[in-house]
Formats: sequence, structure tokens, C-alpha cells
Amino acid sequence: MTRLEKQIQFIEEVDKLKTIVRQTYIADGSRKENDAEHSWHLALMCVVLSEYSNEDIDIAKTMAMLLLHDIIEIDAGDTYAYDAEANTSKKERELAAAQRIFNILPEDQAKYFRALWDEFEEAKTPEAKFANTLDKLQPVILNNKSKGKSWREHQVKASQIYERNKITPEGSESLWHYAKEVIKENIEKKNIIDK
Amino acid sequence: MTRLEKQIQFIEEVDKLKTIVRQTYIADGSRKENDAEHSWHLALMCVVLSEYSNEDIDIAKTMAMLLLHDIIEIDAGDTYAYDAEANTSKKERELAAAQRIFNILPEDQAKYFRALWDEFEEAKTPEAKFANTLDKLQPVILNNKSKGKSWREHQVKASQIYERNKITPEGSESLWHYAKEVIKENIEKKNIIDK
Repeated sequence: MTRLEKQIQFIEEVDKLKTIVRQTYIADGSRKENDAEHSWHLALMCVVLSEYSNEDIDIAKTMAMLLLHDIIEIDAGDTYAYDAEANTSKKERELAAAQRIFNILPEDQAKYFRALWDEFEEAKTPEAKFANTLDKLQPVILNNKSKGKSWREHQVKASQIYERNKITPEGSESLWHYAKEVIKENIEKKNIIDK
Repeated sequence: MTRLEKQIQFIEEVDKLKTIVRQTYIADGSRKENDAEHSWHLALMCVVLSEYSNEDIDIAKTMAMLLLHDIIEIDAGDTYAYDAEANTSKKERELAAAQRIFNILPEDQAKYFRALWDEFEEAKTPEAKFANTLDKLQPVILNNKSKGKSWREHQVKASQIYERNKITPEGSESLWHYAKEVIKENIEKKNIIDK
């Protein structure tokens, strides 16, 4: 197979991300969003909100990271943030998926994509910290717009949200400050359980 | 309204791109794709395929251009490439949409996004030429994977595809060469009318 054929095969394979449904509803509440839409939204948010990153970031790298961060869910599925049981087997499933999917690409690109995904998962570099902040902020924005639909369906507790957002301020203090205000309003509206 | 509030309002508004349905089917043929998914796919293709650009490009700029190039369709709708009548009023509808939607952002960003969109539409710079090439290549890849479903539904003629792809080689000779091979195969399979 030529280099281009491998790349096209990867582009065809990742099309499946459009069929991986998340638990968050799109803003109008009409249906749940999928991973491809979510990843598009995050990459665009990166362009709009990069000024709020705590540290200087390479925007191209952060966008690429956001565009590919959920690709492993093609095999591993979307694990709902507040599903404790599914989250215990999550890492193993995702590693196997990364091994298969990124290796469709030519070797140099497979390594580059895998390294970007690992970097996102480790959340230690400025780019990975900011990408993780956006990944947590986006469902807060959508839940807020859709009147807390997904939070209410899953009876999410404020303590769970705060636990899940432990490292969110590391990417952006200002965006976490904004998210906290939105969470507070939604506790008041009883969209989030105050516990 | 604060700067951040304007930016969040824009992020909420563009969520509607997830509801703008295109005529192209996703690769498995199960349903049509929407503009948000399409834009995600293009931006990721930009990372994978940038080596085939005829000219050196700024990848961050090209990705941003691809992420926002269809946002005007939130108001203007998706105009099917081979619908001659709808295409006569297309530009006017799109300009009004650009005026409204980009101006939700703070002024500096509104100008930056509008300029990026104009640049994409004019298709003169290396980034805009490559972005346009990807925008034409992606439906060819999806139509081919879905056994020509959308081409067959619209009884598309080869001459229409070649006319629509007049500037595609300007972004990438090699990707256009690949697309031509795929088009030829689909003429042989009678997914595209040989006329």
C-alpha cells in the first residue's frame, strides 16, 4: 500500500467517529452530540479562547490534539464520565484502540498521532492542559444551554463535577472561573444535585 | 457584555452547525453528514495530508479556515453543489450570514474570522487553495465509500464534477490525481453518469 493509500484508509476509518454518541445534548436539546461534532467544537473553541490559557500554547498542536483526542472511542466507545464501573476498564480498551487505529497511518504519522494522544491523556504540557480544560468546559456550556438535560437525566451531583474538574484550572484559571459560575447557577436551578 | 461572554455566545451559536445537513452520506451510507462533522473531518485531513499541498502552508491557519468555512450555512443553509437555481442566490445569503454570525465575537476576532472566511472563498492564497482542495476531496472519499450513494441519488454527471473541481489541482496536484482515479472508477461502476 502506498503512503497516500494508508492515509486515505485512516481518513475513511475515522469517519466512524461520527457514529459515536456522547451523553451530552447539542445546545437545542434535540439530540445527543457525537464525537466528531464534539471534536470540531473543541478545536474551534481553541481558536476563539486560546488567550485564556494559563501558559503560552502552540495552537496548531493543540487543535490537532483536540481533533484526534476521541478517535480511540471508535473501538473503545464513549465512557460516560460518571459511570464508575465502565471507567475501570476504560484505559485498557482505549490503549488497544490507539494501537489499532493510529497504526493505519504511515509509521511516522502513527507515532506522531499516538504521541499527541498520549500527551493529551497525561495532561502535563501547556497544550494538553488547555485541551483538557476545553474538553471539560464544552459539556458545561452545552448542558447549560439545554437546561441541564444530561445532568438531570444522570442525576449528576456537584461533587462529581468538581472531582472530574480537578485539573481544569491548570489549563485556564479564567475559563474554570467561568465554568464554576455556570455550575453554581445550575445547582440553584436544581439541574445539578447540591451534594 | 464582557469579551468572554461574547465569545461564549459565539460558541453557543455555532453549535447550530451540527444541525445543517449536507447531501453527502457518511462512509457507511447510514445517514447524511452534517456541517460540523464535515468540518472536523477536513481539519483532521489537513493534519494528515498537508505534505501534498503544492505550496508551503501555515497549518494552524488552514485548520482554523476549515473549522469555520461552513459557519455561514447556519443562516444560509447547505446549497447542494449541483443545484443550479439555489446557487444563484447563494452568495447574497452567505454574506448576510457572515455579517451576523462573526459579529457575535469581539471586534478583533470578528474581523479575523471574517477575513479567514473571505480568504477561503477567494481561494487565492496557498492556505485557501489547499483548504478548497480538501473540501472537494472529502465528499469524493465519502461517496466512494458509500458506493456512490449521493452521486446516484442526484444523477450527477462526470462533467459536473470536473467543472466543480476546476481549481482543485491548484491546492494539490497529487490529491487531485488521486480524486480523478476515484472518479474514473465510479464512472465505470455507473455511480457517476459518463457525460
